[in-house]
Amino acid sequence: MNTIDINCDIGESYGAYTIGADEQLFPYITSANIACGFHAGDPGVMRQSVQYALKYGVKIGAHPGLPDLQGFGRRQIDISATEAYDLVTYQIGALSAFVQQEGGILHHVKPHGALYNMAAQSQSLADAIAQAIYDFDPRLMLYGLAGSALIQAGNQTGLKVVNEVFADRTYRDDGLLTPRSDPLALITDTEQAVRQVIHMIQQRSVISTNGNSIPLIADSVCIHGDGQHAVSFVKELQSRLEAEHIHIQPVMQTES
Amino acid sequence: MNTIDINCDIGESYGAYTIGADEQLFPYITSANIACGFHAGDPGVMRQSVQYALKYGVKIGAHPGLPDLQGFGRRQIDISATEAYDLVTYQIGALSAFVQQEGGILHHVKPHGALYNMAAQSQSLADAIAQAIYDFDPRLMLYGLAGSALIQAGNQTGLKVVNEVFADRTYRDDGLLTPRSDPLALITDTEQAVRQVIHMIQQRSVISTNGNSIPLIADSVCIHGDGQHAVSFVKELQSRLEAEHIHIQPVMQTES
Amino acid sequence: MNTIDINCDIGESYGAYTIGADEQLFPYITSANIACGFHAGDPGVMRQSVQYALKYGVKIGAHPGLPDLQGFGRRQIDISATEAYDLVTYQIGALSAFVQQEGGILHHVKPHGALYNMAAQSQSLADAIAQAIYDFDPRLMLYGLAGSALIQAGNQTGLKVVNEVFADRTYRDDGLLTPRSDPLALITDTEQAVRQVIHMIQQRSVISTNGNSIPLIADSVCIHGDGQHAVSFVKELQSRLEAEHIHIQPVMQTES
Amino acid sequence: MNTIDINCDIGESYGAYTIGADEQLFPYITSANIACGFHAGDPGVMRQSVQYALKYGVKIGAHPGLPDLQGFGRRQIDISATEAYDLVTYQIGALSAFVQQEGGILHHVKPHGALYNMAAQSQSLADAIAQAIYDFDPRLMLYGLAGSALIQAGNQTGLKVVNEVFADRTYRDDGLLTPRSDPLALITDTEQAVRQVIHMIQQRSVISTNGNSIPLIADSVCIHGDGQHAVSFVKELQSRLEAEHIHIQPVMQTES
Repeated sequence: MNTIDINCDIGESYGAYTIGADEQLFPYITSANIACGFHAGDPGVMRQSVQYALKYGVKIGAHPGLPDLQGFGRRQIDISATEAYDLVTYQIGALSAFVQQEGGILHHVKPHGALYNMAAQSQSLADAIAQAIYDFDPRLMLYGLAGSALIQAGNQTGLKVVNEVFADRTYRDDGLLTPRSDPLALITDTEQAVRQVIHMIQQRSVISTNGNSIPLIADSVCIHGDGQHAVSFVKELQSRLEAEHIHIQPVMQTES
Repeated sequence: MNTIDINCDIGESYGAYTIGADEQLFPYITSANIACGFHAGDPGVMRQSVQYALKYGVKIGAHPGLPDLQGFGRRQIDISATEAYDLVTYQIGALSAFVQQEGGILHHVKPHGALYNMAAQSQSLADAIAQAIYDFDPRLMLYGLAGSALIQAGNQTGLKVVNEVFADRTYRDDGLLTPRSDPLALITDTEQAVRQVIHMIQQRSVISTNGNSIPLIADSVCIHGDGQHAVSFVKELQSRLEAEHIHIQPVMQTES
Repeated sequence: MNTIDINCDIGESYGAYTIGADEQLFPYITSANIACGFHAGDPGVMRQSVQYALKYGVKIGAHPGLPDLQGFGRRQIDISATEAYDLVTYQIGALSAFVQQEGGILHHVKPHGALYNMAAQSQSLADAIAQAIYDFDPRLMLYGLAGSALIQAGNQTGLKVVNEVFADRTYRDDGLLTPRSDPLALITDTEQAVRQVIHMIQQRSVISTNGNSIPLIADSVCIHGDGQHAVSFVKELQSRLEAEHIHIQPVMQTES
Repeated sequence: MNTIDINCDIGESYGAYTIGADEQLFPYITSANIACGFHAGDPGVMRQSVQYALKYGVKIGAHPGLPDLQGFGRRQIDISATEAYDLVTYQIGALSAFVQQEGGILHHVKPHGALYNMAAQSQSLADAIAQAIYDFDPRLMLYGLAGSALIQAGNQTGLKVVNEVFADRTYRDDGLLTPRSDPLALITDTEQAVRQVIHMIQQRSVISTNGNSIPLIADSVCIHGDGQHAVSFVKELQSRLEAEHIHIQPVMQTES
């Protein structure tokens, strides 16, 4: 039977600033990627996000980003592989302290925004990130863009990888996401987004903006928590996946 | 036999900015309090500091501070107990990730600067900090100003506490440090500083600026790493302690 | 005839984070205090806020705060008078660059949050802030809590001062605001808030939480832009002030 | 007679962190580029830097950088032209407030580090920066890499431009600096550095790392204030320029 994990970026509020309808989304997701204070999130928000995840039985992931609160981690910064290794380590550690205090288990790591995109294409950054995670705890899973350099790095490092796909983003022929600067980047039609997800799970491929079928593994689908219609979309997706007998469940570490 | 731990604040450099002759000091200290990125330190500096500590066999402590790089964590910020609990947790976690990766063991926590001073006097902040440490790992030791609210909080929480004394700072009748704003705050004469340390260890008391003998436990003496003469001072202190048959060694967790 | 200025804190969004229904409020206010990037605001938000003010013919003020984005400038930081002088200068300068580019005129300065409250009570901080403004441009007006140390500092420095009053905050016998930590601090009932404003303007006094009548000058009333009902409140206030024949207009520099 | 301006990046200290032997360098330079708090500098350092410049009769420039204190503004951040326009405006304004208070005149703007390099190559960023300066004050001069896109932008915008050359950096055939990542990037030999400067002034060209003669205008030579031998180098350069009858003087706004 086909299965899929539904993950969402969580804990992106900061001080007096609120982003995301976090608690409303938790009932519909199976994995939460919690911001770690560099691109979003603060210590208080991180704790509350961990508490929500435990309350709703959702897997907890660290969501490290570039040190750019003003740019929400979406602007590329030309960091070295060593800097990537260190800033991922710092952020995983910070989040894991809250997880440890609250009695949970850290399940995965998913880089955020520009760091995610850079790691999808730069093998040296991808390797540094995968190695940082492995050296911290080799049982952690690594979420990356399906088929990207980050997935390859995780595989080579010895981490269990989770191929992530997007409902509301279009794909290029090389399997990467169409950049946000391109008018074709976003899928705003709910029906089209849902069908893309089902297609990716069932067909193990996606139709690129050029109309080509690109092979792709879909382990987890990302739901954006800061979008306008996040809650209604995830409800719709959930009911359609169930109708297709696609089981929604987190990716689990393989027993050895 | 009398024993004493020599601790030093380490890893206070940041990016292109250097503070402290860290590697020169490591041979003479037994505990390092490593800045965690809020008042000083960055991920790369944190890793290097952990590597130095392991190389020189020095105990590793987290040195969390207030979020105030410009003020070097020395300006009081009116945070709540909950904020203290969360920001200490965040910083301990961040440092412990580097320690874990490098194969070391986190030994203690010592708050920095204004956070240290606030925790010496505010029981609610002291309790929050002690609880954050305990909830993260009850085996960690808590360094605080000898006899202060923070030491009391650590004792009540169930942490092993380390009473810290200062060579180059004068004391008031209430056992607290004379504030830096007071012209009498600093002891600039090396001989006087050394004699104060030896007196505190052997007599279990200190002479206040008013000439009174104030009882005090001296488990660890703090050496400032960013001072001009840090290295020469710690060498002198070391040789004088040895002449007095005071054994220099870290404080160890009591075996149960 | 009685007159009153209606001011509002504006431009408190930051990067991807939005606070305040700024553009909806502009039609109802006469002065805008624009955040300058320390406690809120960023360069892009500052420019847009200046553009809005010019579009709606609203007087432009700088709204400098403490360097504490996470605490939204509401946590006291123990800064020196020199630090206050310098950080106010920096922020006024930054905002005035946008005003200059957009063809406007900087009209006033109003410190934000904890800086405002500290300047209401500490004469040395108040003097430093007033002097920074005067030394930058002596034609700028200084907004401060009615009757506070900041108003006194402005008067002594030679700045034109604007006594600010609050619709939704209660007052103590000493004329200061009841701190937010006190359950009596906020007036949540619209009718009570409106009546307090009208009373302050017409009677030149306010009834303290102890029931005493405290003399007070009301040059400007502050509307909070980040509240839930900001727009409906300011509409109601406007219509009620008009019914009382209180003219809503900005405070103007006296012609010499 | 040949003339040259000697400029230096100044005011790069931050809080407790010191970079640069600023006061020792002032007697030997004619223009100071003062950091504005984004990549280095803080309000107190900015004021002191302005005071030094006035004391030594050195022209004052704003030295805006990317918002990256940890990377010292040397890491490229993928900002938009609008963001560049706004962050340059903000920083020029902040510095100009100190200049205004201290009774000086802002003379020029020179972008820092990665922003400088990005503006040397990206015409859209260069245009945005030149426009921001022009819109703030069209009398300001714009320092940029000799012959770069930034110089071209300044010329088109209507700003007086200053072609900057480097003593201790090598040049590529396209007239750009050899990147720091290249082992050939730096000229560490004093004699070679001095001779390159004299050659550039007298011959209006530079010899690239490939041995080609590249035409180039040398209006100003940059001295690095944070280098180890900054003071001894600038003394040597000064005496050698005098021996060649090259007059050291700031670039002045042409009288109209």
